[in-house]
Amino acid sequence: MKSPNTNIDFFMPVRIVSGEGCISANQNLFGIGKKALIVTGANSAVKSGALADVISALDSQGIGYSVFNKIMENPLVSVCYEGGAAASQTGADFIIGIGGGSAMDASKAIAAYAANPDILPMGIFESELKPSLPMILIPTTSGTGSEANMISVLTLDGKDAKKSFKSDYSYAKYAYVDPVYTYSLSYDYTVSTALDAFCHCIESYLSPKSSEITRTLAADGARDIWKVLSEISAESTISEEQRRLLAYASCRGGIAINGTGTGFPHPLGYNLTMYHGIPHGKACAAFTGEYLKYNMQNNEGRQLIAAFSELICASPEIIAENIPKLAGINLKLSSEEIELFIRQVGGASNYKNSPYVINETEMKKIYFKLFG
Amino acid sequence: MKSPNTNIDFFMPVRIVSGEGCISANQNLFGIGKKALIVTGANSAVKSGALADVISALDSQGIGYSVFNKIMENPLVSVCYEGGAAASQTGADFIIGIGGGSAMDASKAIAAYAANPDILPMGIFESELKPSLPMILIPTTSGTGSEANMISVLTLDGKDAKKSFKSDYSYAKYAYVDPVYTYSLSYDYTVSTALDAFCHCIESYLSPKSSEITRTLAADGARDIWKVLSEISAESTISEEQRRLLAYASCRGGIAINGTGTGFPHPLGYNLTMYHGIPHGKACAAFTGEYLKYNMQNNEGRQLIAAFSELICASPEIIAENIPKLAGINLKLSSEEIELFIRQVGGASNYKNSPYVINETEMKKIYFKLFG
Repeated sequence: MKSPNTNIDFFMPVRIVSGEGCISANQNLFGIGKKALIVTGANSAVKSGALADVISALDSQGIGYSVFNKIMENPLVSVCYEGGAAASQTGADFIIGIGGGSAMDASKAIAAYAANPDILPMGIFESELKPSLPMILIPTTSGTGSEANMISVLTLDGKDAKKSFKSDYSYAKYAYVDPVYTYSLSYDYTVSTALDAFCHCIESYLSPKSSEITRTLAADGARDIWKVLSEISAESTISEEQRRLLAYASCRGGIAINGTGTGFPHPLGYNLTMYHGIPHGKACAAFTGEYLKYNMQNNEGRQLIAAFSELICASPEIIAENIPKLAGINLKLSSEEIELFIRQVGGASNYKNSPYVINETEMKKIYFKLFG
Repeated sequence: MKSPNTNIDFFMPVRIVSGEGCISANQNLFGIGKKALIVTGANSAVKSGALADVISALDSQGIGYSVFNKIMENPLVSVCYEGGAAASQTGADFIIGIGGGSAMDASKAIAAYAANPDILPMGIFESELKPSLPMILIPTTSGTGSEANMISVLTLDGKDAKKSFKSDYSYAKYAYVDPVYTYSLSYDYTVSTALDAFCHCIESYLSPKSSEITRTLAADGARDIWKVLSEISAESTISEEQRRLLAYASCRGGIAINGTGTGFPHPLGYNLTMYHGIPHGKACAAFTGEYLKYNMQNNEGRQLIAAFSELICASPEIIAENIPKLAGINLKLSSEEIELFIRQVGGASNYKNSPYVINETEMKKIYFKLFG
């Protein structure tokens, strides 16, 4: 495919250490500070085994730590602000984020707040910031890819809306990708996060900001995810080998969207998550079919979809049918709610990030068709 | 494929700007210093049009420059040392390397010498170094991928041997990959450099240090190169579209080998270049067939070769036959010379960097079989 533009294409300075047992095999890399704040949710860091491996690595290097485990799904700005204060109070000079997208995205905000104690909560979106505290990120799900990019999606307090915080200071110094940490995830959760990763790959591939490098990573990630999703849909169990494929695929998706951003399924999906609690991956995947159909109306879109579809060995029609089906969302929205949703999307920039740019009428049509 | 080990690093902090016209579209990025030393060979920077674009970008930003155009193929340590002194004398605070692997590899050494004026020429291999001057790299060939890694292969004065200089300070800040700069290259030169890039991809893919990320990039790069090489071998002309594919493929190969290194075709090939002037790409490609055959004797090697071969849509046998055939080297070596070559290889570490590790007897067999 022809590079659609001549802007900056590829930058991803995170050092990614991967493989089973990669934390214990690389404990020395934890020595990037004297005192860590471990940022995580209530359960996943413990259940996955990642927290124990991290603590053992910190102990081996004689590094102190505190744990801030208040991160919930769709992390609030206010909680991240509190995390920043916790980092300062405990004297942490670096951050270790363990968990899914929520914990890792929150870590990026906390690392920024900790280094900028004078700003207000909304200041990370508005102010000129000092460099964040250094970070290590450890995913325990295979969806977000947040370990491999500078993107942090936060939820605005009292607004039922998400906002992206992006900064060149938000790259982790190291990311440890160990698929073992995903072994304990349920079937349903694994599928939902895999759908998120698939959406990253396809939306990145079609983005006008994509390059050969990002498309390579996006297509290869999507192929592995598609393979796993096709295999498991019948039997409802997921093997370790399949989980391994998903872990590395989601990481590649995370690298890909770092350069390109996502497309309209993301902002349209945020509303389903914010107002109806639909898990993020499923919420985005619900729109993949419409996303493909609209982009087929554009010449560049058609070419990119044809190439993507060839690379993952599945026709556009099959992808458009199966991905939303796997999301399996059963939801009925009122006209008023759809109007509200469209106003919410209005503020996002990524709904324009594809060869075919949908307008508000088309957004409304899509919501009505799927959930009207 | 299963990750062969748990000490897998992916780190590639170069910001890669790509696409036709990418320098003039991103002139502002040149403002990383006040005075540049442009490092290049005698011709390619001018002929390709890259030098004119760079000078126009520097002028637009009010940045001064000097030109050091003494880099020849297989750059000598002594010439790089001289370049380092030139940087200091002209007051350069950053380096712009324009050319093929020789100019870009030399730039990495020059950037190190300039920041470490007190070391002796061999000091860059031995000493603790201060951070190099910042660098911008601009390839004018599609082979080396040096723009996307920290590897610098230098030739030792009076030794007829190559030595790698690698440093975490040797990453470019920006790389501009514009395929237009390769349009003026001859058919023969283009094939030779494409073979180099293909060798990077296949040797990286099989490396025990490879990960899903590097294998993704390596296989996708190899597929594009294989496609172009298959199309052109009949007709001997290379289209702009084909040159575009090669430019981005070689860049992906360069990212891939950054994490993994190369395999035995590289050190075995160096001798053909040093003692018989065989261009680097052809010299490596001559050994690809034997490289595949030996690695087929190992279970992990067989699996990796099968996966690679499926991804690039060509059987191992066809690859093993066609790549050396495209190199087309007609050379007869004496027993004494082969003995000397093997002693030279002895010092390299990358001959061990594949699932099957050849011993000296096997090296001798390979040289005899191909050139005895």
